[in-house]
Amino acid sequence: MVWYYTPDGGRRKMTDLNLMRSLTQSNNTKMVLLVMDGLGGLARELGGATELETAFTPNLDRLAREGMLGLMHPVGIGITPGSGPGHLGLFGYDPLKYLIGRGVLEAVGIGEKLTEKDVAARGNFCTVDLDGTIIDRRAGRISTEECARMVSLIADITVPGAEIIVKPVRDYRFVLILRGSGLSPALNETDPQKVGLKPFRVVPQDDSEEASRTSDLVNQWVDRVSQRIKNERPANMVTLRGWAKEPGLPTFADIYKIRGVALAVYPMYKGLASLVGMQLINGLSNLEEQIEALREHWDSFDFFFVHYKYTDSRGEDGDFDAKVGEIEKVDKVLPRIVDLQPDVLVVTGDHSTPAVLKSHSWHPVPVLIWTPRFARGNPWVSGFGESDCLRGALGQFNAASLMSLVTAHALRQVKYGA
Amino acid sequence: MVWYYTPDGGRRKMTDLNLMRSLTQSNNTKMVLLVMDGLGGLARELGGATELETAFTPNLDRLAREGMLGLMHPVGIGITPGSGPGHLGLFGYDPLKYLIGRGVLEAVGIGEKLTEKDVAARGNFCTVDLDGTIIDRRAGRISTEECARMVSLIADITVPGAEIIVKPVRDYRFVLILRGSGLSPALNETDPQKVGLKPFRVVPQDDSEEASRTSDLVNQWVDRVSQRIKNERPANMVTLRGWAKEPGLPTFADIYKIRGVALAVYPMYKGLASLVGMQLINGLSNLEEQIEALREHWDSFDFFFVHYKYTDSRGEDGDFDAKVGEIEKVDKVLPRIVDLQPDVLVVTGDHSTPAVLKSHSWHPVPVLIWTPRFARGNPWVSGFGESDCLRGALGQFNAASLMSLVTAHALRQVKYGA
Repeated sequence: MVWYYTPDGGRRKMTDLNLMRSLTQSNNTKMVLLVMDGLGGLARELGGATELETAFTPNLDRLAREGMLGLMHPVGIGITPGSGPGHLGLFGYDPLKYLIGRGVLEAVGIGEKLTEKDVAARGNFCTVDLDGTIIDRRAGRISTEECARMVSLIADITVPGAEIIVKPVRDYRFVLILRGSGLSPALNETDPQKVGLKPFRVVPQDDSEEASRTSDLVNQWVDRVSQRIKNERPANMVTLRGWAKEPGLPTFADIYKIRGVALAVYPMYKGLASLVGMQLINGLSNLEEQIEALREHWDSFDFFFVHYKYTDSRGEDGDFDAKVGEIEKVDKVLPRIVDLQPDVLVVTGDHSTPAVLKSHSWHPVPVLIWTPRFARGNPWVSGFGESDCLRGALGQFNAASLMSLVTAHALRQVKYGA
Repeated sequence: MVWYYTPDGGRRKMTDLNLMRSLTQSNNTKMVLLVMDGLGGLARELGGATELETAFTPNLDRLAREGMLGLMHPVGIGITPGSGPGHLGLFGYDPLKYLIGRGVLEAVGIGEKLTEKDVAARGNFCTVDLDGTIIDRRAGRISTEECARMVSLIADITVPGAEIIVKPVRDYRFVLILRGSGLSPALNETDPQKVGLKPFRVVPQDDSEEASRTSDLVNQWVDRVSQRIKNERPANMVTLRGWAKEPGLPTFADIYKIRGVALAVYPMYKGLASLVGMQLINGLSNLEEQIEALREHWDSFDFFFVHYKYTDSRGEDGDFDAKVGEIEKVDKVLPRIVDLQPDVLVVTGDHSTPAVLKSHSWHPVPVLIWTPRFARGNPWVSGFGESDCLRGALGQFNAASLMSLVTAHALRQVKYGA
């Protein structure tokens, strides 16, 4: 057991977050974390340039020459992160220690605000035959509109002792939230993962009364849902998985003494930011509005998380040139961020999404830390790109250390030990 | 839980130190660790050179071209280390696992040798009003001379059951050591951290008889001190904090099979070296005497820790040019170290102290490992400096791995596993 000693003479178990909690202090500095989702990329041919290296980015290139570059591993070397772990890492939470259950991530992803009384699950609509045996686990991948119609059919179903919230997500997916006292997420998943079997009944995964009671409630709900939609086609049944409670992460205010705010368009990223206690600015629908909101709220917060989605989207599409274009759009607004005179400006991604892979990947993500406070400069850096980052002052490191670097450069840390 | 298997078939919990303990072997090699305190720096302007890069260091530059460079994080990425953690890292002890309490560090810093029967605290002289309420937590920051006079007034105060040792440190600070059987450092600190309150009584922080007994002894001592100095001005009371015992670190001899010796001028660094079992050469007052002692004791030890303080001092002063000058002084004596034909020579710092920051910082520290045994060379390295270190063979790593590299290059490690 490793302990650290608090200023009041107490001691607490040493974890990364407790270390940060014990070292950080408040001041008047402003920090901006600009995330281009899926920023990291790959060249299309041997010796070629990546998306970031291909993009015309005079502003990023100048910041790169004046600041510090590196490559970040969002989770660990060779690990391909989902959006949840990718962002937890950026926020300083080791994604291997802090897990967000799928149910919570789906709920957060559609903007549902969870309470500590909630248990959430990811649901799939599926197709069963007259015996109740699954013949299509995704109900022919019904459209999001059809999913919304199905949800409207079951949204009023109640069970005694818990409030029920059902929301459509995308295609055949929905979120189920049970809200009430004494609920437990210690439940099995009901999807048998193959056709030819019936959905499993929910059974508790531990001996607690809470799990037993929750499984009863869920089975009642599933029975009523089945009764209600059994004559619909193609979706006529549901499966449930990823049972989870809101993770209760320590907040930014607690760990870093920071008033953080998220300027994001997509609910998933607003949700992830809210899980660490950032405030949300709602109603933003594009980069222009995000930058304008940044200016508007500049005096009210210390830390600004600006999220740009479309670099990832075009990477997932496999559209190299379109991803280049999205990076260039972000570069164009950078001077407006710099004009606000941030003390620390970070530009990075939550993971790589190389267009040639059409998916998230394990490649470390380029990161740029710029601060007017300390002159570094690096004659081997000509701009912001993966190859330049290889020669950067920051080396390669795990994303969970980023916030330590950010607060250090904002002079928000005291020294460790005498 | 991770275990390692000992040659006699037993098994022990795997920690970094047990790994080293299981792999190291003795031989006749000589290793020198030359520490320029606070070596790492920053440029004064964008594109400029750091202190180390500005200094004229033909000898270090030659060693850099012939050896291996890298950058070391003393504690972790973005963490600013104190001197204690900085040196523990260099000696191979993860500073996040091995903590040295403030009381011990202060005692060690003035050359007090602690025993396992000791409990030590850092003390402050303060000023209280007639009610005993603190009106100045530092007694007007009395001088070191006045502090010594105050200590002389209370040095003969005894309590039953423990020997009392009180020593002045600097300004308003002193060290209190209780020496006896069955003493515990599980005590609160008595400084309320603000004026307008009385010093707290000492109360035990756990249920042990030792803590209860120790708190009684300390309260008796404080009462007698108060009685003795209540009519003095400005210091007329004391507060106590940082209760700690000698940490009982595994020794160099045990872990590395090394006879280590410290050639240091300042008591703090001699003390830190003695905590890991190095022998001390006393009476050294400057670099000339340190180098002479190195030569004199060359045959008696395997590992030589040479500590140079003034690079840090001039960095703390914010005097860039003076720090450059101190680095050049060290460079001048290097040939005399090389002439002794060490098998491994390391030149580094315990942390960075950029003159532009006037304080310790989180920036990784340049490190140079030179050994005549293996030709490496690196066409991208022109000398010893932060930018060269970025391109070095050693990359960026945590300081706690340095001793593994040192013993490896001294051929003092067997292979791990068959």
